[in-house]
Amino acid sequence: MNRRMIFYTLGKLLIALSALLVLPLAVSIYYKESCTLAFLITAAISLVMGLLLSKLLKPASHVIYAREGFAIVALVWLSMSAIGALPFVISGEIPSFADAFFETVSGFTTTGASILRDVESMSHGLLFWRSFTHWIGGMGVLVFVMALLPNVSDRSIHILRAEVPGPIVGKLVPRIKDTAKILYIIYIVLTVIQVIFLLAGGMSLFDSLLHAFGTAGTGGFSIKADGLAGYSPYLQWVIAIFMLIFGVNFNLYYFILIRKAKMAFQSRELWCYLGIVVVAVTAICINIYPMYENFAEVLRQAVFQVSSIITTTGYATTDFNLWPAFSKGVLFVLLFVGACAGSTAGGLKISRVMLVFKIIGREIRRLIHPRSVAKVKLEGKSVDEATLDGVTTYFAVYMIGIIATFLVLSAEPFGIETNFSAAVSCFNNVGPGFAGVGPMSSYADYSAFSKIVMSLAMLLGRLEIYPLLIVFIPSFWKKD
Amino acid sequence: MNRRMIFYTLGKLLIALSALLVLPLAVSIYYKESCTLAFLITAAISLVMGLLLSKLLKPASHVIYAREGFAIVALVWLSMSAIGALPFVISGEIPSFADAFFETVSGFTTTGASILRDVESMSHGLLFWRSFTHWIGGMGVLVFVMALLPNVSDRSIHILRAEVPGPIVGKLVPRIKDTAKILYIIYIVLTVIQVIFLLAGGMSLFDSLLHAFGTAGTGGFSIKADGLAGYSPYLQWVIAIFMLIFGVNFNLYYFILIRKAKMAFQSRELWCYLGIVVVAVTAICINIYPMYENFAEVLRQAVFQVSSIITTTGYATTDFNLWPAFSKGVLFVLLFVGACAGSTAGGLKISRVMLVFKIIGREIRRLIHPRSVAKVKLEGKSVDEATLDGVTTYFAVYMIGIIATFLVLSAEPFGIETNFSAAVSCFNNVGPGFAGVGPMSSYADYSAFSKIVMSLAMLLGRLEIYPLLIVFIPSFWKKD
Repeated sequence: MNRRMIFYTLGKLLIALSALLVLPLAVSIYYKESCTLAFLITAAISLVMGLLLSKLLKPASHVIYAREGFAIVALVWLSMSAIGALPFVISGEIPSFADAFFETVSGFTTTGASILRDVESMSHGLLFWRSFTHWIGGMGVLVFVMALLPNVSDRSIHILRAEVPGPIVGKLVPRIKDTAKILYIIYIVLTVIQVIFLLAGGMSLFDSLLHAFGTAGTGGFSIKADGLAGYSPYLQWVIAIFMLIFGVNFNLYYFILIRKAKMAFQSRELWCYLGIVVVAVTAICINIYPMYENFAEVLRQAVFQVSSIITTTGYATTDFNLWPAFSKGVLFVLLFVGACAGSTAGGLKISRVMLVFKIIGREIRRLIHPRSVAKVKLEGKSVDEATLDGVTTYFAVYMIGIIATFLVLSAEPFGIETNFSAAVSCFNNVGPGFAGVGPMSSYADYSAFSKIVMSLAMLLGRLEIYPLLIVFIPSFWKKD
Repeated sequence: MNRRMIFYTLGKLLIALSALLVLPLAVSIYYKESCTLAFLITAAISLVMGLLLSKLLKPASHVIYAREGFAIVALVWLSMSAIGALPFVISGEIPSFADAFFETVSGFTTTGASILRDVESMSHGLLFWRSFTHWIGGMGVLVFVMALLPNVSDRSIHILRAEVPGPIVGKLVPRIKDTAKILYIIYIVLTVIQVIFLLAGGMSLFDSLLHAFGTAGTGGFSIKADGLAGYSPYLQWVIAIFMLIFGVNFNLYYFILIRKAKMAFQSRELWCYLGIVVVAVTAICINIYPMYENFAEVLRQAVFQVSSIITTTGYATTDFNLWPAFSKGVLFVLLFVGACAGSTAGGLKISRVMLVFKIIGREIRRLIHPRSVAKVKLEGKSVDEATLDGVTTYFAVYMIGIIATFLVLSAEPFGIETNFSAAVSCFNNVGPGFAGVGPMSSYADYSAFSKIVMSLAMLLGRLEIYPLLIVFIPSFWKKD
C-alpha cells in the first residue's frame, strides 16, 4: 500500500481547499462581515496542513491501485468536511461542531439537509460557502484536483472510479487529466448559463450564484425560510429545468460538444430518466389538481418537486408534506431512484436501477428456459458478469445501509415516517424527507450523535459506500 | 410444457382441499351453526372440480421440470385461496369477495392480516377454518399432497423447491415422498404438544387448537378483539416459545429424531436466529422498562413481540404501536428478516440474510485484495456462484416488490407509516404493521382494489416471488 501517496494527495487537496476558501472570504469582505476572520483562519489551517503533508510525505512512487484510490477518496472527503465546518464554528454562527459538520457534509455530498432553524439570519459569507460546498462536491473535489495537477498518472482512474458515482465509470478521452478538465468545463459553462437565466428573471447576483451552485451540484440548500416558494414562476421553471439538466450523464454533453449529438440522444438511460419524470409528473398532476388554482400552477409544482427529488437536489416550492398520500408515495419512491450515472445526482442512479431490472428479467427468463444463455445489455453493450454481481451486491449493501441508519435514528423520539424518510433522504443525498424532516422543517431537533450518524450516511451515499466502509476495516491498512 | 400434469395435480389438490373442509364442517355441525351449508357447498365445488380436472386431464407422462413446478404451485395457491374464500362469502359472514379472498390468502400465506372489525362475532366453524388455513399453508399444501399421493415421482422436488421457502431446498431422505411425510409428522407432533401445553394452562380446546394452528403455521390470526392480551402470562409464554420453535428449520428436528442432535446444534443459522432474538429482546427490554410494572412483564412483552415478529406470526399481547420509537424501529427491521429457512416462517429468512452479508463481506475483501479468490460458505459448505447470484437478485426483486406494493397502496388516504408497514408486513407474511395497521387495528379500511393487491403481495412473499410472477408472463405458457 502506497501510504505516502495517499497523504501526499490529501495534502494537495487541502491546498486546493484553502484556495477555494478565498471565494467566500472575498464575499465576506465585500459585505464587511465578521466571518472574514473565520475564513482566514480556516484557509490558513488548510494551507499549512496541506503543505506539511505534501512536502514531508513526497512519495517515492506515484503508482496507485484501487485500494489507494479508495483510501484517498475516503480521507479527502472526511478531512474536507471537518475543515470545511470550521468557518461555521469559528464565526460562532453554528456553535456546535456536530451541527457544523452535518451542514458541511450535507453541502459537500450535495444532500442539502440543514440543521439551521433560521437560515435568513446567516451572514452572506457563510451562506456563500455553504452553497459553494454543493458546487465543489457535485462534480467531485478530486476530479477538480486532477484537472489542475500537472502530472496526473492514468492510474488516477482509480480515484475517478471511487469519486464519480455509477455502476460503470470510464474515461471520455484517453488521458484522465483531460477527462477531468472536460467534465469541469461543461460543469462551469452550464452553471454560468443558469446564472444568466436567473439574473434575467430579476434574481439578485448573490441569490443567482447560490441557487446555481445548489442546482448544479444537485444539492438543494435553500437560503430562504420558505425555500423557493417566494420566487416567481419563471425563476422556479428555470431552476426546475436546470435540475433536470444537471441530472443527465455529463458524457452526453461531451458527445454533443464533439458533434455526436445522435449518440447522446440514443442513450437509453436518458430516455428512461425522462420517462420516469413524465410518468411521475402526470400521476402527481392528476392527484394534486384540486389543490391549486390553475393548471399552470399544478404543472409547475409537480415538475418542480419531481425534478428536485429525482435529481436528489431537494429544493422545494411548496410543502409537499401537505400533498395527498399518493403524491407523497410517488416522491418517496423517487427518493431511492436518483438521476443518471455520471451526473452530479445521488441515489441509486437510473442505469443501476435499469441493470437491476434487467438482471431480474434474466433470472425470470432462466427460470422459464433453464438452458437459455442470456447476456444483460446496457446501451447496446453486453455487461460483464462481475459488474452485474457488483450491481446486485451494491443494491443489497445500499438497502442494509438505509435500514441500519434508520435503526440508529429510531432511538430519537420521532415517528417512523420521520426517521425512515430521514435515513432514505440522507443516504440518497436528497435533503428533505417527510413529516418531521419535510421540506419546510429542519434536522435541528436530532441529537448530536444522530447528526454524526446521518453525516456518515450522507458520505456513504455520496461515495457509493465501499470507499468509506473499507477504511474502517483494520486489515485494509495492513502492509502487503 | 406438460400442461396436463399441471391441471392433473391441481385436480388432486382440490380433492385434498375438499377433504380438509370436512374438519371445519364438523366444527360447524358440533356448534349447530348456519355456516354448515357453506362448507358443504364449498367442499362439493372443490370435489367436483378436482375430480373433473384429475379424471379428464390424465397426463400421458408424469415428468415435470422446474417450469411445471412453478406453474403448479402458482395455480394451486391462487385456486385454493379463491375456493377457500367461498365459505366466508356463502355464509354471509364476510359478504364481499375481495374481503374474503384477502382473509383467506392471509390465512394460507400465514400472514394473519385481517379485515375483520369484530372477530368475536364470527361463528366457530368459520373461525376454525380461518385458523386452519394457517396450519395448511404453513408447511405447504403441496407438500401435504405429496406426502399422501401414492406415486410421487422424485421429479416433484421441483414442487418442493417452489413451495418450501429458503435459498437452498434439499431432501432429508432420498425419496421425496418420505421427506414430505417426515416434515408433516414433525409438524403434527409439535402442534399436538403445543395444544397440550395450552390445555394445561386452562385454555379451552377450541381456543387451544386455533392458537396452535396460528402458531405452527406462524400465521397469527387472533380470535379475540384484544389479540392475546387477555390470556394468562403462562399461556403467553407457551405461545411465545412455540413461535420460536416453529421458526427453526425443520431439518434440525429431523436430525434430533435420527439422534444426530449434535448436527442440529451446529447449525449457524440456528445460533444466528437465537442471537438476533436475544439482542432484540435485550434492546427492547431496556427501552420499554419504564412502561410496565415489573421486570417479569417487561421480559414477557419483549420476548413475545420479538418472537411474533421475527417468526412472522403476528400475534400480539400488547399494542406495540404505543411503544417508544426505538422499540418500534427494532420491530420494523425484524419485519424484513424472518426466521430460519425450511421453517413455516415468512420473510427473507435468516440464512438468506446471512448469505447477503457474506456476499457483501466478500465484495469488500475483493476490493481490498483484488486477487483474492474467496468462496462464500454456509454451514461449513461452500455455496456455488449461481445460488449466490440468486440470493442477491432475490433480495433486489423482493425490495422492488415491497416498494411497488407501497406505491399502489399510497393511493389510499392513509399515512406513509401505515401504507409502508402494510406493504412490508403483507410481503413478509407477518400480519400487523404500524399506525393504522397496528396489532390492535385491521385492514378493513383499505379499498377492495388495495386488498387484492395486498393479497397478491402476500402470495408473492409466501411463494418467494418467482412462481407467481412468471405465470403472468405470456411466453411462460408457450409450447416448447
